[in-house]
Amino acid sequence: MSKITKAAAIGGGVIGGGWIARLILNGIDVKVFDPAPGADRKVGEMLANAERAYGKLTPAPLPKPGKLEYTETLEEAVKDAQFIQESAPERMELKQSILNEIDKYAPADALVCSSTSGLMPTELQKGMNHPERMMVGHPFNPVYLLPLVEICGGEKTSDDAKQRAADFYEYIGMKPLVLRKEIDAFIADRILEAYWREALWLVNDGVATVEEVDDAIRYGAGLRWSMMGTFQVYRIAGGEAGMRHFMSQFGPALKWPWTKLMDVPELTDELIDTIAEQSDEQAKGVSIRDMERQRDDGLVSVMQALKTHDLAAGDVLKGYENSLYARAHSHVDDSKHDISKPLTLHTASVRPDWVDYNGHMTEHRYLQVFGDATDAFLRFIGMDQDYLARDRSVYTVESHIRHLQEVAAEQPLSVATQVLGLDEKRIRILHVMSHGETGDVLATSEHMLMHVDTAAGRACPLEAPLTDKVHPLWEAQRNLEKPDFAGRGIRELTA
Amino acid sequence: MSKITKAAAIGGGVIGGGWIARLILNGIDVKVFDPAPGADRKVGEMLANAERAYGKLTPAPLPKPGKLEYTETLEEAVKDAQFIQESAPERMELKQSILNEIDKYAPADALVCSSTSGLMPTELQKGMNHPERMMVGHPFNPVYLLPLVEICGGEKTSDDAKQRAADFYEYIGMKPLVLRKEIDAFIADRILEAYWREALWLVNDGVATVEEVDDAIRYGAGLRWSMMGTFQVYRIAGGEAGMRHFMSQFGPALKWPWTKLMDVPELTDELIDTIAEQSDEQAKGVSIRDMERQRDDGLVSVMQALKTHDLAAGDVLKGYENSLYARAHSHVDDSKHDISKPLTLHTASVRPDWVDYNGHMTEHRYLQVFGDATDAFLRFIGMDQDYLARDRSVYTVESHIRHLQEVAAEQPLSVATQVLGLDEKRIRILHVMSHGETGDVLATSEHMLMHVDTAAGRACPLEAPLTDKVHPLWEAQRNLEKPDFAGRGIRELTA
Repeated sequence: MSKITKAAAIGGGVIGGGWIARLILNGIDVKVFDPAPGADRKVGEMLANAERAYGKLTPAPLPKPGKLEYTETLEEAVKDAQFIQESAPERMELKQSILNEIDKYAPADALVCSSTSGLMPTELQKGMNHPERMMVGHPFNPVYLLPLVEICGGEKTSDDAKQRAADFYEYIGMKPLVLRKEIDAFIADRILEAYWREALWLVNDGVATVEEVDDAIRYGAGLRWSMMGTFQVYRIAGGEAGMRHFMSQFGPALKWPWTKLMDVPELTDELIDTIAEQSDEQAKGVSIRDMERQRDDGLVSVMQALKTHDLAAGDVLKGYENSLYARAHSHVDDSKHDISKPLTLHTASVRPDWVDYNGHMTEHRYLQVFGDATDAFLRFIGMDQDYLARDRSVYTVESHIRHLQEVAAEQPLSVATQVLGLDEKRIRILHVMSHGETGDVLATSEHMLMHVDTAAGRACPLEAPLTDKVHPLWEAQRNLEKPDFAGRGIRELTA
Repeated sequence: MSKITKAAAIGGGVIGGGWIARLILNGIDVKVFDPAPGADRKVGEMLANAERAYGKLTPAPLPKPGKLEYTETLEEAVKDAQFIQESAPERMELKQSILNEIDKYAPADALVCSSTSGLMPTELQKGMNHPERMMVGHPFNPVYLLPLVEICGGEKTSDDAKQRAADFYEYIGMKPLVLRKEIDAFIADRILEAYWREALWLVNDGVATVEEVDDAIRYGAGLRWSMMGTFQVYRIAGGEAGMRHFMSQFGPALKWPWTKLMDVPELTDELIDTIAEQSDEQAKGVSIRDMERQRDDGLVSVMQALKTHDLAAGDVLKGYENSLYARAHSHVDDSKHDISKPLTLHTASVRPDWVDYNGHMTEHRYLQVFGDATDAFLRFIGMDQDYLARDRSVYTVESHIRHLQEVAAEQPLSVATQVLGLDEKRIRILHVMSHGETGDVLATSEHMLMHVDTAAGRACPLEAPLTDKVHPLWEAQRNLEKPDFAGRGIRELTA
């Protein structure tokens, strides 16, 4: 079959709308049939959210968006479609009747996927003339962002159709998981349902409020689940002794009243062997120590990601950092710095995600380190939260950076700062970035800083307490030698 | 009580070692008692992992690490401690005997917290003389990173002790959740246990392998759980109609065979009311649309965070981006660019997390946008994966940036690129960043680019196909006017 460029969406609710948005943003034309009043408004809102999210999701070039068209009949929507996604309400008879109608009007080789959360495809495909191309393609909300889609075929679904659907879902940025067996609620929703049922008990019994039940996950295990499922988490918890050790240690808890939900499987030797062997396969030879470091790197980045939005664990991290800054500030010891020499006020190490395709610290991360050094310098001369609260700040208006050596991941960095000039409104500074251990000079940056009234949006003279700190500093440094590259621009090429 | 600076850790396994690392890195002195052979080696490895992770976790200034000391006896470890964390194996009698010994030797007002995953504190504190200061403080692995700690008091625990423990845990960067009721396995582990039991069934019944069960979470719902628990997720799924609507829609599924774990609570009107009301309180007046955007922002950032480590959904995103680049590359249409004028090869919008404490795009993000524009320019002149694979690349060796206007979040940006010079090994370029709609010039940057042999680590002459593209481009642009600021350096201040 040729490349899929035309799709149909039957149903434009929360799930259908999410599919429509993902398809359109991946350059697929979509015809939508949804007889519900206001469906186009809701789809439009969903598409706007999705466009907003994709604008941030990737710097990679998205294709020209597909065409969106609403049709009056189901027949019109599906008659030319190569791929049809059905997202009607979760009622067996309704879905069966819609699928039969799709089957009647769609090209015989068009793929037909149902978004059902748990109905069995063998039942859904019963009345179809071409059931071999029908399967479940179960996504997760928001469909335009979450990659998982569970593909579950019925008795009559062909392997070829499942493979074609998997390829297409992957093409539009998803992670298809093809099920081995047909089962109510597939895989993910069985786990979601167990979680949901236990959560209902906790609220029902007055143990916790809905917010507390949510907090008990999102500040803890939920962070791990963004990168690892429970088997891998427990493999790590087992430590060097591995999965079999973990199972023997925590096996007895299966009989304890640790959830209201019972009917537990018997932990036979056979089941333990199966899990231990499959866990080894999953680990692909990665040691527990390496897996721990992968997990830690992931958790650190996830918490930092959440911090940028003040969400859950990111909000905790932010509060913690603020208190660290406050604690450190109350301990600032000016006397330890000799202000007659360049000041080392900032050190850092190159984070692994700062490295580009050349294996070196990405260009703009140099300026990040220099910018952090500028912030440390401004804190040193007394710019604190109180000062900023008075609508006064210092902006960088000009920078000149020289990249002298490559910098690799996890390398320690140290920045020394010299004041090159001062007038009523401006401070000219020079940063020299060195290797934290060898002292090799890696890069330099020269900056013109401008003091501003942020409310009025214009430059204004420096004020106390900055003036009290920066004048003595400039007096102490004004006779230091200025490097020959200071003040120099980028030169002409004469070839 | 005075500020806690001295702690004791009884047990240095996976959990105890994690506590020790968190305490030490927060400047708390820790005495460790663990009679197991090799305990100090394991703690040392844990501490090394934790130091590595904290180096990336926060740019905020961590305090000077606390002192770590191993003691020969439990008495020595606890006798001067203000805070004691017990992390012994999960056996009631063993823990009771250790807690009694701690109680005997520790100062009477020292806090005593047990890391137990599920044993009841009322039982644990039975033989203690000062049971009022004993409680459960249940953390999650890795303890030095995950913020959640569940505080569960027994019948004799005082409210004051629970408050002091909560304050201390918060001080060391955690999110304490104080339980209202004593219950086996507290809150989080009840949900983890339900998930675990269902996961065991899925493997037991041959529905899926452990890897598939894990994938069914980490590529989907697990991403949401890093920021939202199931109640908030379902509130959003309910859409504008809210939680009550969701409950009525999905209530019947509670009776369906969607998990092996039954014993479901009766969905009485009372329970539905409780959940709907508590969900309203949790939402704190945030509308569903705003909550959706918060969720999307969080998910985007989490996936990007995971991408930097090739983990789970981040790996999917990376593959998707690579294919987008490949698809776009096969469609590059040179003819649409007039090479005799500056080339607009890169556009972007200011991501909300690019904004600093002044409310404007952070300094180094300017260079990120300019760096992306340089990459787009290099792709335009033919530098692709094949070229890089030949150990040839182009590095920026010098940059001069002028920040002319403030740039706010979500503002569209457009960069035009002019070639200012070319010789055998170097290209000198100028980027002008404008507002994508008004055309106002926001910043400029001038760069010297050097062509390098990355294997040898030195400059070398440009090669085909770059030479074939860049020479005609330079010929077409060499007579364009050069802006007066090109080549200029940062000027002296004459005050």
